[in-house]
Amino acid sequence: MGKGAETRGAILERAVQLASEDGLEGLTIGRLAAALDLSKSGLFAHFESKEGLQVATLERAAERFVEVVIRRALKAPRGEPRLRALVEQWQRWPVEVPQPGGCIFVQAAVELDDKPGPARNRLVQLQREWLGSLATAVKGAIAAGHFRGDVDPEQIAFELYGIMLSTHHAARLLRDPRATARARRAVDRLLSSCRAG
Amino acid sequence: MGKGAETRGAILERAVQLASEDGLEGLTIGRLAAALDLSKSGLFAHFESKEGLQVATLERAAERFVEVVIRRALKAPRGEPRLRALVEQWQRWPVEVPQPGGCIFVQAAVELDDKPGPARNRLVQLQREWLGSLATAVKGAIAAGHFRGDVDPEQIAFELYGIMLSTHHAARLLRDPRATARARRAVDRLLSSCRAG
Repeated sequence: MGKGAETRGAILERAVQLASEDGLEGLTIGRLAAALDLSKSGLFAHFESKEGLQVATLERAAERFVEVVIRRALKAPRGEPRLRALVEQWQRWPVEVPQPGGCIFVQAAVELDDKPGPARNRLVQLQREWLGSLATAVKGAIAAGHFRGDVDPEQIAFELYGIMLSTHHAARLLRDPRATARARRAVDRLLSSCRAG
Repeated sequence: MGKGAETRGAILERAVQLASEDGLEGLTIGRLAAALDLSKSGLFAHFESKEGLQVATLERAAERFVEVVIRRALKAPRGEPRLRALVEQWQRWPVEVPQPGGCIFVQAAVELDDKPGPARNRLVQLQREWLGSLATAVKGAIAAGHFRGDVDPEQIAFELYGIMLSTHHAARLLRDPRATARARRAVDRLLSSCRAG
């Protein structure tokens, strides 16, 4: 990786942190420049517009998500263990890639759901890919004989997403110390209901 | 209800709509005055500050939630039917009380989770009350013999909340036409897992 790419990566990771706290709408080239003590004009040269910066920030978050969640989970054996590894890495994601305001994708989903434009389009694509990866892991568990053949992979992805969102809500808004334990029990119940024999 | 209370209610319902779209942070006395074609100074007299307006808007949303979700569901027989009625009314809530940007509480939860202050405090209290109402309905289903005695009411409330959040995400961000059907299947699976005998 060249120095330019490295600098760009570092800039965008700061942008991910800021967006996790104040949202993508709160992420302006001016605020990012101030946070990094860089010139606004230099950042403009990189990202051209606020929307360009928003899309680049989502891209960077997605790259890091692939690294710390998906690639690591792929080391687990195919089937239920890999699905579980995905879920476990996912829970650690806002800590592994620091997001002081909680997961940037949760923040962005609520913010952009009724704001048409390139940032929303990219987010929708990324979220569909992630739900697709979860569904693929469920299919792997069916193929490995861990889960029954009549399990609906997209339904399980939808329900896992719900458990993650409820955990985020309980931990971040309600400061509920039992959030992680509740998430574990919910995942266990869901995956048990899929299990063969 | 006097004319003053009626006017205040109508003003706050417009505020609920605006906040569902642009968030509570986007809800200022100036924007609300413009949307209602009222004078800013008149609204200032009512709400004193942006924070006063935010708290009053959450209160109004909560009052309407009690009316259209909780009171209606209380007409269903105690036990699983009442719990189901709560969940069904809950799904209709952003339509029954118009919230063009989706549920104001989902929006506010993500927005306020790291913004200490009176609006966050009131939201936390309201969300705990609602999770408490769901848990109470689960206890009712245990008492009525519909659910097993070892069911954990707060765990079920946590999981129902997750299904609702995933439905919101699928419907609003992903525009997934299967969101409601997925929610129904998830609720059925969860409640079946609680059922006695």
